[in-house]
Amino acid sequence: MNDAGSPTERTLTGPVLVVGAGMLGTSIGLALARSGVEVRLYDVVPQNVTIAESLGAGTDASDVDVADMQLVVVAVPPDHLAHEITAALTSGGRCVTDVGSVKNAPLRAVAGRVSPELLGRYVGSHPMAGSERSGPFAASAALFDGRPWAVTPHPAAADESVALVTALARACGATPVTMATEEHDEAVARTSHVPHLLSALVAGRLAGAPASHLALSGQGVRDVTRVAAGDPALWQQIIAGNADAVAGLLSDVRQDLDDLLVAVRTGDRTRVSALLARGVAGTAAIPAKHGGPARPTAPVYVAVPDHPGELARLLASAGEIGVNVEDLRIDHDPGRPVGLVELTVEEGRADFLTTSLEERGWSAHR
Amino acid sequence: MNDAGSPTERTLTGPVLVVGAGMLGTSIGLALARSGVEVRLYDVVPQNVTIAESLGAGTDASDVDVADMQLVVVAVPPDHLAHEITAALTSGGRCVTDVGSVKNAPLRAVAGRVSPELLGRYVGSHPMAGSERSGPFAASAALFDGRPWAVTPHPAAADESVALVTALARACGATPVTMATEEHDEAVARTSHVPHLLSALVAGRLAGAPASHLALSGQGVRDVTRVAAGDPALWQQIIAGNADAVAGLLSDVRQDLDDLLVAVRTGDRTRVSALLARGVAGTAAIPAKHGGPARPTAPVYVAVPDHPGELARLLASAGEIGVNVEDLRIDHDPGRPVGLVELTVEEGRADFLTTSLEERGWSAHR
Repeated sequence: MNDAGSPTERTLTGPVLVVGAGMLGTSIGLALARSGVEVRLYDVVPQNVTIAESLGAGTDASDVDVADMQLVVVAVPPDHLAHEITAALTSGGRCVTDVGSVKNAPLRAVAGRVSPELLGRYVGSHPMAGSERSGPFAASAALFDGRPWAVTPHPAAADESVALVTALARACGATPVTMATEEHDEAVARTSHVPHLLSALVAGRLAGAPASHLALSGQGVRDVTRVAAGDPALWQQIIAGNADAVAGLLSDVRQDLDDLLVAVRTGDRTRVSALLARGVAGTAAIPAKHGGPARPTAPVYVAVPDHPGELARLLASAGEIGVNVEDLRIDHDPGRPVGLVELTVEEGRADFLTTSLEERGWSAHR
Repeated sequence: MNDAGSPTERTLTGPVLVVGAGMLGTSIGLALARSGVEVRLYDVVPQNVTIAESLGAGTDASDVDVADMQLVVVAVPPDHLAHEITAALTSGGRCVTDVGSVKNAPLRAVAGRVSPELLGRYVGSHPMAGSERSGPFAASAALFDGRPWAVTPHPAAADESVALVTALARACGATPVTMATEEHDEAVARTSHVPHLLSALVAGRLAGAPASHLALSGQGVRDVTRVAAGDPALWQQIIAGNADAVAGLLSDVRQDLDDLLVAVRTGDRTRVSALLARGVAGTAAIPAKHGGPARPTAPVYVAVPDHPGELARLLASAGEIGVNVEDLRIDHDPGRPVGLVELTVEEGRADFLTTSLEERGWSAHR
């Protein structure tokens, strides 16, 4: 007998209890509040709730009866997922999800602790959005907009629970993607966990290097190592929670590395080229941002004086010209008078933008 | 006897012959033209010269006597460096440099082909600036502004040649960094070549993965793999030209990977955490962009409607408020009405900017 069985409950009407008012939990609160859904917040650190509340992410859940909630969202670090999911189910939670980075291990742990009936009320999920920053101050109502949000049902899951968790993803502005827990964990090992670990190994080889060597760092190494700045305490939990999939893929990468090392040592340029070409193919395989259809874009480069207002003046020009800027990268030295701005625009508009900017006195080129 | 011995020649007055009118060579032409230095251009592909000339990077060098040039800059792929440097020296070049990504192998090759006197006129160099794009259309006069530019003298190098190549770096807007060829090659193995190869291995494991898995790709994997889109034909030459330093460092990374793999398989969380923490230390060791002193910055997040002019309106607000935007990242789905913009500003100004933007009606938070 599943209390969440009423068809009307497939619409997320609230109230929603969010357990864990960190960056993710607070962002969910903000996104739901934006959609007009009532949100209650709980965190073991009361100050996090105070901050999240002040940001408009919901109200303190001290007086809440879990059984009165339409949905409980568990947003805690991986090591605590199974405990909090179990607690929500045994406290009368009608529908429970979590937003952890690993999905199979918590499901197995919860399945060992609750009855099949209670387990049916739980459906895990995972929004593909994050930040190197943590805590409620890093939250944003727009964090999930247009992002994939994995919903990972298990065989015992109630249809109503699956539908409600899917509705949660939509209410937060995300695009739900349904897959099994095992498939999810394989996918994120490849697209998130192993890239993170390799980034950390590359970054680790910079630690302790002579400053004169590091002075030659360019944008490439900065991009490759950006994610390696993430919190080790959180990431070691993620890796431990997905150890099998991560170890399998790391073994594959080690085999590739062995091949590469032999090729570099023996001067086998054909083999080095083949490994590099497979990398190019891999970068092309990543879908367009947010999983939408890829629309061809092109960069336009513009020289911009480095003081307040100049970037605004450039984008005002682009706006007057009527070309939408889809991405922007500033490459400048704060101590110098001119920086180079790379505007990404629809490919068919790039020539028009370049010419029109130059007519307006900008130094622009493709 | 060195013809470049006059002290007055330590100032770059031109004319300068640039051999190779690709992305780098054309950018050097544009940067020197900006400084009022006469530039002559040569390329085995005449169309590249035509394009570079039309961009204002210099004029065709067909009628040029190399001995009339104050400086020859060789800007060709690594495999052709030694040949072109030697040709410039034996054709009467008074001072010759190159801008290749590897420095020791070309020097050794040239030393085996010319007299010690001619060799003294050659001093290699390497601007730390580039792009995944190639060809003269990708060039920019501002490419080197504020970037490090390695100048790599050898024991037989004439002081005048070292001074003139240093002047070239300055004339292009870069910051000269002097180091030995071996030290340069060790440094770029660590800060460029090995990061590139590991990025390619991570990207390579995406090629052929199920589309449903790749649909979960976030910003992290995009950043880690961006450089892997670079041209394999160029990069295999760079790797081959720096094989010893690259192989040594790759061996170290393989050792780290072996350690990591054992730690993940055995559930040794302490060891995984230690490797992740060393990665964090490595990201912190990278100096501020362009080698300048690090100035603390902070992000401010703003929700921005996704149509022409809105980004301009936001930056106009920031300009009115008087806060300089040092970096900007747009995170949006082209198909959705609102995106999130991350503005990077001086840390001490972030609260003021957030409050002031909200007073102007923007949805902003830190």
